[in-house]
Amino acid sequence: MGRVTERRKVIRIRDGAVSARPDTLVAEEPLEIRLNGRSLAITMRTPGDDFALAAGFLVSEGVLATAADLQNIVYCAGATDGGTSLSERSRGLGGGSNTYNVVDVRTAPGVVLPDITLERNVYTTSSCGLCGKASLDAVRTTARWPIADTPPVRVDPELLASLPDRLRAAQRVFDRTGGLHAAALFTEDGELLDVREDVGRHNAVDKLVGRALQSGALPLSRSILLVSGRASFELAQKAVMAGIPVLAAVSAPSSLAVDLAAETGLTLVGFLRGSSMNVYAGEDRVALRTAAAQG
Amino acid sequence: MGRVTERRKVIRIRDGAVSARPDTLVAEEPLEIRLNGRSLAITMRTPGDDFALAAGFLVSEGVLATAADLQNIVYCAGATDGGTSLSERSRGLGGGSNTYNVVDVRTAPGVVLPDITLERNVYTTSSCGLCGKASLDAVRTTARWPIADTPPVRVDPELLASLPDRLRAAQRVFDRTGGLHAAALFTEDGELLDVREDVGRHNAVDKLVGRALQSGALPLSRSILLVSGRASFELAQKAVMAGIPVLAAVSAPSSLAVDLAAETGLTLVGFLRGSSMNVYAGEDRVALRTAAAQG
Repeated sequence: MGRVTERRKVIRIRDGAVSARPDTLVAEEPLEIRLNGRSLAITMRTPGDDFALAAGFLVSEGVLATAADLQNIVYCAGATDGGTSLSERSRGLGGGSNTYNVVDVRTAPGVVLPDITLERNVYTTSSCGLCGKASLDAVRTTARWPIADTPPVRVDPELLASLPDRLRAAQRVFDRTGGLHAAALFTEDGELLDVREDVGRHNAVDKLVGRALQSGALPLSRSILLVSGRASFELAQKAVMAGIPVLAAVSAPSSLAVDLAAETGLTLVGFLRGSSMNVYAGEDRVALRTAAAQG
Repeated sequence: MGRVTERRKVIRIRDGAVSARPDTLVAEEPLEIRLNGRSLAITMRTPGDDFALAAGFLVSEGVLATAADLQNIVYCAGATDGGTSLSERSRGLGGGSNTYNVVDVRTAPGVVLPDITLERNVYTTSSCGLCGKASLDAVRTTARWPIADTPPVRVDPELLASLPDRLRAAQRVFDRTGGLHAAALFTEDGELLDVREDVGRHNAVDKLVGRALQSGALPLSRSILLVSGRASFELAQKAVMAGIPVLAAVSAPSSLAVDLAAETGLTLVGFLRGSSMNVYAGEDRVALRTAAAQG
């Protein structure tokens, strides 16, 4: 619990010189997320903020939308007889005492659950068909928080350009391990609201969103989400499900992330480096005229 | 099918100058992997090498170990009535015609299947318990190809240091999109055997391993696997399950990846940059004495 880093012996080779020394690594442990007692997912994550991770994951899945939807979250204690598949076993089902690696999220009375408790990843119809368009439709029709910033958030490119440096300054563990993805929430004025780090890119965003849910801050309709790496479909989905109007990524977006942003009205900025960036969707929120006047 | 990149309009901002132009993005689409007709997993991936991706995924899961275990792999055609959960629907269940996003892997008669077809990610016992140690045990006891390089593979640090540049030279799509993870297989003498790129880090490795399975090259007991990013537990797991003795990563490993390497005898190299690297486990395969003599 809270083992964000661990020490291991390492042999360093620097220009042919060899030395042995201890090194600090990012901790990675499996976390099982249960919903009202039923197992929903197992993710490899960096320990810490586990309740927020679970809550944020359930926001992305459309289960939770407000703090009132949540009754409580607890660590499970007890023994196990092990999982049945390699997937489960390799993710660490086993042991006996409380490992702080299993959390159970209990929803408030009256919360309507989607079918994910029983059917997640077990798609049993015999017919085929799967496409990116359907992925977009599913998010659009399920979002509990349509992106609705009134008046629209409007940010200067200069403000966006300043965010990555401030994210790095706020990252505590990365400097020591180099092994973490980071995600940060900023206000539309560029004030840092929160930053989370995790060995898994999705987990860092889930932790941010979960903490926002717990503090009653959803939807995050006036905030900017910055991620340290690439913008995949699933990261764009998490932004949309939390009602975040602007997603900025230090690296490249995927085609489906851009398509989802365009369909839902999300502003998607990629390759945010130095004073440069690419705006892939929702350019109305970026104050381009100011920039053009300078160019 | 085979849409490795897609074009989208982008607004570029460079030092205040704004221009609109088409941009090349890495394609991302959902892929559903079925095993003998039953759905097993849905992953977001870059289209292309889908059969190899599915085969490699099943090597990692302990289902396939040799080409003889595989009867055939086909794309499914037909309609769907949609998934039941947001997870499924947001990953794109829907549509009607063949989207080349659903593959069915059929195993040869006599192949014993683990229980993953029915139980994957649905861990229904009421007790708790989950830990990193159990994750390690599961891989160690399930590996069909123990790492058994006889005589042991032995590589010079200089050879390892040369691999990232050769991986980048072989990456075709990254230069255009910046959005891809890459993985490459080299011989112990540094000859490039294969390189794959994908929007998902795990997928690139699965595609490599799947192609090796299809060509009868498993176990890869004399090869080096290089990944463009970090070394997580799951990437180390994939190396072990394919019998690969050396995993090298350009960036940091996690604690659990190092532990898995130490337990299974995998050589794990991280931060492979310029002439520097860290050896986290299995240092016997790295010719350190030569390097020390130079230091």
